[in-house]
Amino acid sequence: MNRKIYSLLIPLTFFTFLIFTETNLNAQQLPSEKIQRYSELAGKIVRSALLDKKGYEWLKELCSIGPRLSGSENSSKAITWAKNKMKECGFDSVWLQPVMVPKWVRGKIEKAYISKSKKYLNKKLTIVSYGGSIGTSKAGISGEVIEVKGLDEVKNLGDKAKGKIVFYNRPFDNGLLNTFEGYGKAVDQRINGAIEAAKVGAAGVIVRSVQSNYDNIPHTGVMLYEDNVKQIPSAAISVIDADFLSKAIKTEPNLKITIKMDCKSYPDVESYNVIGQLTGNEKPNEVIVVGGHFDSWDKGCGAHDDGAPCLQTMEALDLLKRLNIKPKRTIRCVLFINEENGLRGGIEYGKYSSNSFEKHLAGIESDRGAFTPRGFSVTTDSLSLMKMQSWLPILNKAYIEWIRKGGSGGDVGQIKNAKALFGYVPDDQRYMDVHHSDNDVFAAVHPREMELGSAAIAIMSYLLSEEGL
Amino acid sequence: MNRKIYSLLIPLTFFTFLIFTETNLNAQQLPSEKIQRYSELAGKIVRSALLDKKGYEWLKELCSIGPRLSGSENSSKAITWAKNKMKECGFDSVWLQPVMVPKWVRGKIEKAYISKSKKYLNKKLTIVSYGGSIGTSKAGISGEVIEVKGLDEVKNLGDKAKGKIVFYNRPFDNGLLNTFEGYGKAVDQRINGAIEAAKVGAAGVIVRSVQSNYDNIPHTGVMLYEDNVKQIPSAAISVIDADFLSKAIKTEPNLKITIKMDCKSYPDVESYNVIGQLTGNEKPNEVIVVGGHFDSWDKGCGAHDDGAPCLQTMEALDLLKRLNIKPKRTIRCVLFINEENGLRGGIEYGKYSSNSFEKHLAGIESDRGAFTPRGFSVTTDSLSLMKMQSWLPILNKAYIEWIRKGGSGGDVGQIKNAKALFGYVPDDQRYMDVHHSDNDVFAAVHPREMELGSAAIAIMSYLLSEEGL
Repeated sequence: MNRKIYSLLIPLTFFTFLIFTETNLNAQQLPSEKIQRYSELAGKIVRSALLDKKGYEWLKELCSIGPRLSGSENSSKAITWAKNKMKECGFDSVWLQPVMVPKWVRGKIEKAYISKSKKYLNKKLTIVSYGGSIGTSKAGISGEVIEVKGLDEVKNLGDKAKGKIVFYNRPFDNGLLNTFEGYGKAVDQRINGAIEAAKVGAAGVIVRSVQSNYDNIPHTGVMLYEDNVKQIPSAAISVIDADFLSKAIKTEPNLKITIKMDCKSYPDVESYNVIGQLTGNEKPNEVIVVGGHFDSWDKGCGAHDDGAPCLQTMEALDLLKRLNIKPKRTIRCVLFINEENGLRGGIEYGKYSSNSFEKHLAGIESDRGAFTPRGFSVTTDSLSLMKMQSWLPILNKAYIEWIRKGGSGGDVGQIKNAKALFGYVPDDQRYMDVHHSDNDVFAAVHPREMELGSAAIAIMSYLLSEEGL
Repeated sequence: MNRKIYSLLIPLTFFTFLIFTETNLNAQQLPSEKIQRYSELAGKIVRSALLDKKGYEWLKELCSIGPRLSGSENSSKAITWAKNKMKECGFDSVWLQPVMVPKWVRGKIEKAYISKSKKYLNKKLTIVSYGGSIGTSKAGISGEVIEVKGLDEVKNLGDKAKGKIVFYNRPFDNGLLNTFEGYGKAVDQRINGAIEAAKVGAAGVIVRSVQSNYDNIPHTGVMLYEDNVKQIPSAAISVIDADFLSKAIKTEPNLKITIKMDCKSYPDVESYNVIGQLTGNEKPNEVIVVGGHFDSWDKGCGAHDDGAPCLQTMEALDLLKRLNIKPKRTIRCVLFINEENGLRGGIEYGKYSSNSFEKHLAGIESDRGAFTPRGFSVTTDSLSLMKMQSWLPILNKAYIEWIRKGGSGGDVGQIKNAKALFGYVPDDQRYMDVHHSDNDVFAAVHPREMELGSAAIAIMSYLLSEEGL
C-alpha cells in the first residue's frame, strides 16, 4: 500500500467509527411521525389534566379526611377512599395488598418550656415529638441544655451531657440550590440524634426543625433508636425558638427546660397498599408501576407529602382512560403504605415483584411534592437513557425539561428487577417549607402545578408502555 | 487516479465537511477550564443570593411604599428609593433619565350592582376600572347587559348593543400549558373591547377578568381608545361575578346593571428611568443592559409585576459587586418607567441607545414574575445562540435549563441595535393568578425563587460581559 492511501485510511477508520456510533444512536431515536403522534396525545393529556383538575379535586377530598399516619384510623379511611376512587375510575383491576405496619401515636401532650431561668421562666418553646420517640413521664424531663452542631460533637461530650437535654442546632443550609440537598445535610441530627445523645447519658434531645423557611411551625419526621442503647425522648423545636434558646443559654448557661410528651408506640397493625391498573392490551404481563406513598405524617394533611403526588399517579391512569388511550403494557398505580416510618409497603410490593410471573419493566415514584415539573431522574443503563431522552420533545408538553441518571425513591426502589426506576422531579424550592409540618395543607398545592405532574407521569408511563426499553 | 482511491475520497469529502463543521462548533464552545472557573463563580453567586436574600429584603421595602403607577406620588417615592439604593450599593454611576409619562388616576369610586331585576336587585358586582378608562357621570351608566365572547361578535351586533353594557365573557383558556399564552388569547377583550363596543353604540363595557385562578379579585390592565370613536367606560368584572352575571341574564334578559367610576386621565407628568451600572474595566463602552419596568398597576403592590423582577436585575449587579467580580464590559441596570400604560421609559432609553457612542451588546428583561428560573428566551443570530447554549452547564447552577430563540420584552426590545435581546423566563404557572391585581403582594413572592432569578441574571450578564458575542 502506498503512503498516500495509508494516510487516507487513518481518518477513514475514524469515520467508520463515527458512522457506527451514529447508527447506534439512530436506533434509539423515534421516527418523526411517531414523535408527532405522541406529541398530539401528550397535548391532549396536558389539556385534560389542566381543565378537568380531577386529581386536584381528589386532593380536596383526601385532605378532608386529615393526615394519614400509618396504622391510624384516618389512614384506613383514606385507603378505603382510594380503593373506591380507583373503582369509580373503572381501572381494570383494583386490590389491596396487606402489610403489617408500625403504629405510633403522638398523643395529646407535646410541650416544652423554660423551667429554670432568671429572665425567661415559663417561656413556652414550640416543639413537635419525632415519629417513633418514646414519651416522657407525666412530670416530663427537665435539664440544662447543651447545644451542639452535630453528631460528632456529641460523641466527644463525655460526662458533660449527663442528665442534660442535648440541643442539636445545626441549621438547614439555605445556600444550596436544591432543598433536598439542604435537607439531607441536616436530617442526621433528627434521625440519629437520640442514639448518640443517649450514649453520653443525655436525658432527652431537641433538634432544630429541619426546614428551609423561617417560622414557628416545627417539622416532624422519623427518628431511630438502636438496640442496647437507652431510648430517650426526641422532638423538633421550631427554628424561631431554636434561635431564641441558643441566645438564652449563652447568657444563662444554667437555664433549664422541661419537656413533656405522651407519644407512644403500639404493636404493629394490618394495613394495605392500594393497587389499581390499566391492563396492557398487548403485553399485559409487562408492568410499569407508578406510585407514591399514601401514608403521611400526622401534621397538616400530607398534601405535598405525599397526597398530591400519589393522586398524580392515580390520575395518570385516569387520564389515559378518560382519553381512551389503551396502553400495550400494564400500567399499575401502587399507593404504598408506611414510607415515612418503616417502608413496609414498598418492601412488601418489592417481594411481590420479585416472586411474580410478571416482568416489571419500570417504576416511577412521585414523592417530591406537587410543584411545576422539571424532569425525571432515572436509574437505568446508558442506552435506555439515550432512548428515553429522545422522548423529551413529547414530555416537554408537560414542562419536562430533562431526563438524567439519578435516584428514584424509597418505594419503587424496592422493585429490584425493573429495567428503569424513575423519580419524578418537580421544582423543589418551596417543598422544605411545608414538608412534615402543619404547613402541608391543601391550600399549599397549586392546581396547575399539580396537574402538570399528573400529565407528565401519564405521558412517561404511556411512552414506556408503547416503546418498551 | 484508480477506482479504489476515488471511492475512498467520497467519504473523505464528507469527513472533511464533518471536521469543518465540528471546528466551527468548537469555536463556539468554552474550554473546560473556563467552564470550571465560571461554574465556581456561578456557585458563589447562587449561594450569596440565597443566603443574603438582599433583593428579597429590598422588595419588602419597595412594597411598603405601595403600588407604583406611572405619574403617581408612590412612583416618585419608589424612584427616589431605587436611586438611593443603587448609590448605597456603590454602583459606579447612578442617574435618572427624564421622560414624560401619562397620568391616570383610579379615583375612589369603582362599583357596579344590579339595578333592575326581580331576583337580584342591588346585588353587588366586583369590578375594577381599566387603566386609561374614562369615568362615568355621578349617576353612573345603567343598561341591559349583552354578553359576547369576543370582538368579532360585537362587530355584528348592530343596533342591538345601543345603550347597553357589552359584557365580554370569553374565559382564560386554562388548558394551555403556558399561562402567558392563555393571557394573550383573552386580553384583546380588555385592550380593544371599548373601541368595538362604542362603534355599535354601547354605553359601557365590562370584561371577564383575565386571570388563571378563580376568585373574586378582578385584574386591571391597560385599555385603549381610538381617535374618532366615542370613549366609553371600561372595567373588569371578577370571574366569580362574571359567571353569576352570565347565568342571571339568561333567566332575566332585561336585568340592568349600573356602573359608577370616577377614574380620570390628567396631562403627562415628568418621571424617570432609574439607571445604575458597573462600568466595564476593559471595554467600558460596550454595554449589557439588565432591567424591568419599575411602574406597576395600582392594585396590590406590583410585587411580581414588576417589582421583584426589577430588583433581581439590580441585585444582579450587586451580586457581582459584593463578590468583587469585575466585569470587562459595562453591566447597566435600567429600571424603565411606564411599561404598563405607555412604554415611554423603554422608548426613551431606546432613543438614547441609538444615539449613544456606546455599543449595546445585549439587553436582558425580567418581566415575567419572580418564580423559579427555567430559561432565557433570546432574539439573536444562530451562531450567538449556539455559543450561549454552551454556557448552560454554568447557568444551570441557578436552575437555568435552556436558552431558546424567542422574544425579550417591551422595554429592552426598544434597544434596536443590540446583538442579543433576552427575556428571563421563570416558571409561569402562578403568575396569572396575581398579575395586575390585589393578589400581587409581597407575600406572593418566595425568597428562594426570587433570589435564584437574581443569580441567573447575574451569571448571564457576567458571561456576556466576559465572552462577548
